[in-house]
Amino acid sequence: MPNLNKNYEKLRKNYLFTETAKKIAVFEERTGRKVLRLGIGDVTLPLSSAAVNAMKRAAEEMGRKETFRGYGEEQGYAFLREAIKKYYADRGVSVSANDIFISDGAKSDCANLSDLFDENNTVLLPDPVYPAYADVNVMAGRKIVYAAADESNGFLPEPDENTRADIVYLCSPNNPTGAAYAAEELEKWVRYAIQKKAVILYDAAYECFIPFGGFFDKSADDAGKNRAENGKDFPVRSIYEVPGADQCAIEVCSFSKFASFTGTRCGFTVIPAALRCKNVSVKEAWTRRQSARFNGVSYIVQRGAEAALSEAGMAENERNAAYYMQNARIIRESLQSAGVVCYGGYAPYVWAKCPFGMTGGEFFAFLLNRAQIAGTPGGGFGKNGENYFRFSAFCSRESALLAAERLQNVLNRGV
Amino acid sequence: MPNLNKNYEKLRKNYLFTETAKKIAVFEERTGRKVLRLGIGDVTLPLSSAAVNAMKRAAEEMGRKETFRGYGEEQGYAFLREAIKKYYADRGVSVSANDIFISDGAKSDCANLSDLFDENNTVLLPDPVYPAYADVNVMAGRKIVYAAADESNGFLPEPDENTRADIVYLCSPNNPTGAAYAAEELEKWVRYAIQKKAVILYDAAYECFIPFGGFFDKSADDAGKNRAENGKDFPVRSIYEVPGADQCAIEVCSFSKFASFTGTRCGFTVIPAALRCKNVSVKEAWTRRQSARFNGVSYIVQRGAEAALSEAGMAENERNAAYYMQNARIIRESLQSAGVVCYGGYAPYVWAKCPFGMTGGEFFAFLLNRAQIAGTPGGGFGKNGENYFRFSAFCSRESALLAAERLQNVLNRGV
Repeated sequence: MPNLNKNYEKLRKNYLFTETAKKIAVFEERTGRKVLRLGIGDVTLPLSSAAVNAMKRAAEEMGRKETFRGYGEEQGYAFLREAIKKYYADRGVSVSANDIFISDGAKSDCANLSDLFDENNTVLLPDPVYPAYADVNVMAGRKIVYAAADESNGFLPEPDENTRADIVYLCSPNNPTGAAYAAEELEKWVRYAIQKKAVILYDAAYECFIPFGGFFDKSADDAGKNRAENGKDFPVRSIYEVPGADQCAIEVCSFSKFASFTGTRCGFTVIPAALRCKNVSVKEAWTRRQSARFNGVSYIVQRGAEAALSEAGMAENERNAAYYMQNARIIRESLQSAGVVCYGGYAPYVWAKCPFGMTGGEFFAFLLNRAQIAGTPGGGFGKNGENYFRFSAFCSRESALLAAERLQNVLNRGV
Repeated sequence: MPNLNKNYEKLRKNYLFTETAKKIAVFEERTGRKVLRLGIGDVTLPLSSAAVNAMKRAAEEMGRKETFRGYGEEQGYAFLREAIKKYYADRGVSVSANDIFISDGAKSDCANLSDLFDENNTVLLPDPVYPAYADVNVMAGRKIVYAAADESNGFLPEPDENTRADIVYLCSPNNPTGAAYAAEELEKWVRYAIQKKAVILYDAAYECFIPFGGFFDKSADDAGKNRAENGKDFPVRSIYEVPGADQCAIEVCSFSKFASFTGTRCGFTVIPAALRCKNVSVKEAWTRRQSARFNGVSYIVQRGAEAALSEAGMAENERNAAYYMQNARIIRESLQSAGVVCYGGYAPYVWAKCPFGMTGGEFFAFLLNRAQIAGTPGGGFGKNGENYFRFSAFCSRESALLAAERLQNVLNRGV
């Protein structure tokens, strides 16, 4: 009889978001009341018409013999890799189209990239962070060490020379905190990686919100003030803005948040040709892995992604990003006016310190019962998130305003 | 410094099809002559208009706020799982929609399912077979044992009571041989799995061709004759046609060949609720794995897959399947008339015994140089394929006829 992967026993039984979704369903069933969902970071604004039209055209091409396409190019179509190269170039970042790999999303890549490494490697994760990184490495039996993200460092941990790690996950802007590294902060991680010969897996899924962020920094919270007063640079959108990163960092990105692709599914990963582990090309190892385990992303979706990066697509995407960030501001200001301390600012999340001395789990129950608002308890993202709470602002303006109103009411009323 | 997965060193450097594609490109570059590609099993007929129209409608839905969809249902949309359930039911096979998982393709699932099992399990593979199964399990460091498929068993190996295996991959109709198991043959594997407490991963990606196959069986080759004379049943399209399979078998299937989805990407896997390993539900383990490592298939593609299963879609799909099978007959009869022995018959492949005492590699070079035809050397699928050659018939009728003509000429001319 086969042994099931023994590492699965070490996992939490349910994935964080599956678990909270169940709690919400049970509440609605029991009370008959509709819950305002600010839990999952799922977009609500539609695809740009550029993307829609491109996919309709691509579907038509697939219906005619002359223009039909079977298996696509192994790394993804050149037209999309070139468009992504340009997306970087427009921000002054140079990435080779040959080093770009198209995938079905950042979640898949953040997990699958770990397959390239032995199970005896040590993984360093920020705490708190997106829970899938830990789950995947627990499943693979790797040792995990944590870099504490907390109020003292503005939720942006720096590397510790005394910590040995082989693989470092960074997520900037961070999910759940919305904190984002400036170049000089990220340089420390690149130096650490080069010195320790570690590989950085840099998840940039929220990079598109950086130009619309930053207002939290100018706020009343201490970490934000410190950051602003220290005159730190504006956050970088790609780790390749930092010299040396091409020798130690893989960047994973996604069309999910940026172009409303959570249900359309497309992401990409950059593995610089210069990145080698003990003289083996990581890019070659990845190519070998993908050719045995993956068959690429739908041609139709790749055409949609290409169009999302066009001038017309970008204009719509940017409008959407600004919309979500305005939602975040609305929710945050409501919390702040009730005395709740908030952090972050570069992703459409509000990372709030739980009031009334509550834990995230207690605050979840409090908001669900008293205001029919569902967010995500911070402890789901790591030990350091225990007393925090994440609100997602990927909702409609109406929901953000309704949430703001309900939050004010319930918080001002007290426990 | 991270250690790269040490198992990758044990892999062939390149994936089979990547390697032959390079050889063809080099030949065309060197000679300036166009090669007739009968290598990769990639479809050439377009999507059904039912699928195209459904995807266009779905793309439009994604462009309107009221009908936009973000992250989909975890196992795949119910509308598609219900359509697949009906696809089985129409053949008298009962599968629960709750046990169906939608994926981006059979290749991904055949690989990802192996993640559920420990690396210390022994994997049994038919030889020859689709090379990705071996690659994936080499990457995971599992021990692999082989069941020889050869002329003596009509390329349909039976289980050997003395072989211990925890995970058994079966592919029926087989890629590359086109041989397919009848119920009474598959029953032996199900009995073996139940007795040894092994799990069968049953790859049914070519099941749709079975109704159009079988003519090879009535041919002059011995294995075919034996099979016909023994009065064996027609092959089964699903392992769940065999009693007890729901306790030991996972079935993986795909829209790739069946509905021309190689470039559109959709597959599905059935994990019966009754399937347990040491009292752990395999279905639950898979759910946990997928929720941490995968975010589902594009809504647009799922709508296309649903439409491909509609009455109108099925009519087009079946016409296409018959077309490819007729191509296979044309290629095969050309080979046979030149005295080449051929096997298989239930997939649009021709599995030929290399003439002139050649190995598959030698025959590849011979056909490339003399006839500008590229197929796949059988050794790429396993040791037992060394003296065989696979022709793919997923080509146009024109290509099949041209190949038949060229094959006759070159084979009758001799070495």
